[in-house]
Amino acid sequence: MTRIAENSRETRFDSLVAEEPLEIRIDGRSLAVTMRTPGNDFELATGFLLTEGLITGGSDVATVSYCPGPDKQEFNVLDVALAPGVPAPPVQATRPFVTTSSCGLCGKTSIDTVRSKSTNDVAGDGLRVPADVLCALPGRLREAQKVFERTGGLHAAGLFDSTGRLVCLREDVGRHNAFDKVIGWAAMSGRVPLRDHLILASGRASFELVQKALMAGLPLLAAVSAPSNLAADLAEESGMTLVGFLRGETMNVYTGAERLV
Amino acid sequence: MTRIAENSRETRFDSLVAEEPLEIRIDGRSLAVTMRTPGNDFELATGFLLTEGLITGGSDVATVSYCPGPDKQEFNVLDVALAPGVPAPPVQATRPFVTTSSCGLCGKTSIDTVRSKSTNDVAGDGLRVPADVLCALPGRLREAQKVFERTGGLHAAGLFDSTGRLVCLREDVGRHNAFDKVIGWAAMSGRVPLRDHLILASGRASFELVQKALMAGLPLLAAVSAPSNLAADLAEESGMTLVGFLRGETMNVYTGAERLV
Repeated sequence: MTRIAENSRETRFDSLVAEEPLEIRIDGRSLAVTMRTPGNDFELATGFLLTEGLITGGSDVATVSYCPGPDKQEFNVLDVALAPGVPAPPVQATRPFVTTSSCGLCGKTSIDTVRSKSTNDVAGDGLRVPADVLCALPGRLREAQKVFERTGGLHAAGLFDSTGRLVCLREDVGRHNAFDKVIGWAAMSGRVPLRDHLILASGRASFELVQKALMAGLPLLAAVSAPSNLAADLAEESGMTLVGFLRGETMNVYTGAERLV
Repeated sequence: MTRIAENSRETRFDSLVAEEPLEIRIDGRSLAVTMRTPGNDFELATGFLLTEGLITGGSDVATVSYCPGPDKQEFNVLDVALAPGVPAPPVQATRPFVTTSSCGLCGKTSIDTVRSKSTNDVAGDGLRVPADVLCALPGRLREAQKVFERTGGLHAAGLFDSTGRLVCLREDVGRHNAFDKVIGWAAMSGRVPLRDHLILASGRASFELVQKALMAGLPLLAAVSAPSNLAADLAEESGMTLVGFLRGETMNVYTGAERLV
């Protein structure tokens, strides 16, 4: 690449973050394609199925494997074989919000759709986190990210326990993928529902991220940046704690402030 | 919300950025649902159809209208009526990268898929932009964003002409939506292909954003943050100029440096 500064122009080498398509199949049938950072693909697929409500835990999965390509082994197509007795997903599984002509569509529809899929109740979770423990987490996440930091283009998701210990960190070009990788890791190691844990997002808190945290049974989602109104609505209706603008010594607690002590 | 600072805890009101689902239909058939910031929805739908290769310009669209809901007018479902003679999209239109079992999937596949859809060649575009003009654009974008800045959670896309004049600014919770809104605006006002223009992204440059710029015929995409490898590959193969880390007086030009003078 060409680096242009005030009065100079020089050719340099630069590392770029990798982005490749991943096709996820269930029992041989194509389900979705996501643009992702290669790595932890089995976790990504498992987490995606869990947060879409197609499986309820790692034990619903028999095997995950890359599909052989026409000439050589493929690493961008993988197949999830469901365990015996686990129902195959409906054809429309990846387009959950598409409505029929006779019904409406609004944020409430989206929330109802998510809530109809959720199997992990977070409302009664007794998680309590000291505010100063939470304040320390963004720094801990950045510290752990430093190993990967050459390219500067990645979203991160960090899973912490209630004492602030980092349990799992994943990065991706897509913020939803980083969440799916963390949640898939937890599902594959038998930790879902993730009671007594919290998840930290390096950027904004969208509706989709609250949805994924909810599906994994996480009672607290914290984000370094702003949440959307629909993210806050879903957190409120679900009894989840939603923290935004977690920076330095301050934070905004949009829902479930009782978990911050 | 509850604002927690070092030794205080107070209840405040806060504005949150709006996020609502939008269902896009073509001639009554559901095509896609996207989570978006309400506003400029007709532009968003038109831009989405254009960047997906389903229409080639605003004249392919007869009308765009919100669909009536069961009880009242809906503002989250809209229908695009195609102009006479414009072919209806194939059923699989929104899942362009799904492969058959006999072929592989990789970044090259994605690039080929995009290139097979592209109707606007940018390789021969004679756009030339002085580096110092480009350096001024992030500041100009932020300045123009200030009117919306209460919530702090939005991605922005800015369309500029070759002299650095801001032609169109759109914001959204989704960076791809911000691009689609800008491009849809341009299509609806008969400006596509957007030769002699450039587009600025407030964040990272992903493969998807390069794809959208390419479909609109934009010869230059600049981003405040990092591009991915696949974004740079697609830009390289298409003859597009891709600029990353546009900050202060410096920038990294990954492809097409000849357009920076």
